[in-house]
Amino acid sequence: MKLFESLLDKISPLSPSYFIAARRRLESQIRPAGSLGYLEELVERLVAIQETSTPAVDKKSVYVFAADHGVAEEGVSLYPREVTAQMVYSFLGGSATINVLARHAGAEVRVIDMGVDHTFSYQRGLVRKKVAYGTANFCHGPAMTSSELELALRAGVEISEEAKADGIQLVGTGDMGIGNTTSSSAVIAALTGKPVSDVTGRGTGIDAEIWERKVRVIETALEKNASYLTDPLRVLQAVGGFEIAGIAGLIVGCAAERIPVVIDGLIASAAALAALELHPSILDYVFFGHRSYERGQDAVLKRYGARPVLDLDLRLGEGTGACLAMGVLEGAVKVFNEVATFAEAQVANKRVAEAALRAGD
Amino acid sequence: MKLFESLLDKISPLSPSYFIAARRRLESQIRPAGSLGYLEELVERLVAIQETSTPAVDKKSVYVFAADHGVAEEGVSLYPREVTAQMVYSFLGGSATINVLARHAGAEVRVIDMGVDHTFSYQRGLVRKKVAYGTANFCHGPAMTSSELELALRAGVEISEEAKADGIQLVGTGDMGIGNTTSSSAVIAALTGKPVSDVTGRGTGIDAEIWERKVRVIETALEKNASYLTDPLRVLQAVGGFEIAGIAGLIVGCAAERIPVVIDGLIASAAALAALELHPSILDYVFFGHRSYERGQDAVLKRYGARPVLDLDLRLGEGTGACLAMGVLEGAVKVFNEVATFAEAQVANKRVAEAALRAGD
Repeated sequence: MKLFESLLDKISPLSPSYFIAARRRLESQIRPAGSLGYLEELVERLVAIQETSTPAVDKKSVYVFAADHGVAEEGVSLYPREVTAQMVYSFLGGSATINVLARHAGAEVRVIDMGVDHTFSYQRGLVRKKVAYGTANFCHGPAMTSSELELALRAGVEISEEAKADGIQLVGTGDMGIGNTTSSSAVIAALTGKPVSDVTGRGTGIDAEIWERKVRVIETALEKNASYLTDPLRVLQAVGGFEIAGIAGLIVGCAAERIPVVIDGLIASAAALAALELHPSILDYVFFGHRSYERGQDAVLKRYGARPVLDLDLRLGEGTGACLAMGVLEGAVKVFNEVATFAEAQVANKRVAEAALRAGD
Repeated sequence: MKLFESLLDKISPLSPSYFIAARRRLESQIRPAGSLGYLEELVERLVAIQETSTPAVDKKSVYVFAADHGVAEEGVSLYPREVTAQMVYSFLGGSATINVLARHAGAEVRVIDMGVDHTFSYQRGLVRKKVAYGTANFCHGPAMTSSELELALRAGVEISEEAKADGIQLVGTGDMGIGNTTSSSAVIAALTGKPVSDVTGRGTGIDAEIWERKVRVIETALEKNASYLTDPLRVLQAVGGFEIAGIAGLIVGCAAERIPVVIDGLIASAAALAALELHPSILDYVFFGHRSYERGQDAVLKRYGARPVLDLDLRLGEGTGACLAMGVLEGAVKVFNEVATFAEAQVANKRVAEAALRAGD
């Protein structure tokens, strides 16, 4: 795919010199070296991505990619397909969990209709990139055509370009789509070679019987689409979803634009996996926001030795875990920029002590 | 101790009815039941502590208890004793890591001089509760007298009363004191019966040789003070520190006042352990902010089956991990209060869709 080839060419591993400079700054600050543990690694990487001595994450945005899934007709979810569109309306109305957590993180929310089975009129906060009214049921063949895949990937890349133009300094991924844990587990099974039952979870909260059906559905899909499972993009085409492909495009685009991306849960991890299989240096640009309760994510984390920021058993999606993690990342950035060095503190402490003495006179 | 007896009498386990009401509210909101995992447990507990249907953590404060330790003369730290007072000046000047992370969390910082080896004049943000100019070296006998212990505990209780009067809705614990990981590990070893080497870490970053000395120092102290190790308060007196006792007093006081307390790392966990051994219901009121890199904390978490909010390998203290955890807790509270219910969303979604249709005319 031409679009991707030129983008992938743009992606380069981070320069060690920024890590060294960042470490030097952290070690000059008034606390024992290394005492902020993983927080320091996170901010070092942000420094290296942004190639700056003063990293900034003031402008944050979470992009919620929404789409319907043909496989939902196999009865793999607790919720009917209509819920996807209803939740999009709730995101636009500002009353869903992602809206609350995005406000808490100081991030704006953009909803991308990638392929919801509903026609949305123009409205603020909605980006219309509909590829189709949902994917095909991948139990009977590929979820999308190759041109649909390209549209979906391009939509994600375009979002990354808009983020760059808007000056967004930290991107979060979000998702909504009834059936999308089924697609995500299928993508992860296909790309990691793990047994389907190892990477399939309870989604919205299905019972053992539905879970067994979900596993069988994925196994059937992987068999049916076996000829597609040779490369990451074909896997997305065969058993992915429009929002998953969109997020993959966003991740690749952000890595090319040097924008750090916070990955949410299972769905975004499946998308990240596809992106990482295309170009391992993308790992430098992504932060796994949290360890999902959905077991399939673990295969992605393990494959790339990635450590999530949070571990709270979240399994909602929407971008909620990414937003919570943004708060931690922003804390790390503020520490980096604002904490005094030993040299500064020596001067400042004298001033504080002297002022206190004068006040006490 | 009279002070504590009446306080402990005031502490009661949380009422199940608030948990049930909180769960009902969470399950009415527009997302799959239980999909926010541990975040939901956290907010349910906040609801039950505050006994309200609209929990609030707008007013947050982190109390940084500072003191010097006689045992520092055994060479158990990388830093000289003077650093305790210097860091207090930095906290007051607003340029230390805790100041930055407290601002990020929207919390105010109060520094309590519990026993720093330095005389501080009056200054804003400093609470003067000095018990003495540092504890005695507990290798030769108890760290403090019983009246010093009572002063230190009372100071912590008074802080909790002031927090209540100030309308503080969420308290964080912080600490500063060269040598205080040694005291904390000693307290934890004494109260859990774990081998000293299992609960002793690298503190500010000591090497293997100093670590071995630190272990021997604690073992010597526990032998020397064996007759004191019969109850939690005597343990604090024998091998604790003024800031550890102060934090223990704060925790007991907050539980009595029904103020949720976020515990920081090793030092606060040692204090929490002493408090919990006095009254197990205190566990209902504390949130372990993070899993510390300091191994001694694990014994406390395991003993009470407690799950920390964050896991970032922090080992700084000051209250930094508590402040980061406050951000997550506040996110949980906002979700609880602000996310629409299914019934509300149905109405609101119609309104959004209709407005969009009209706009599209």
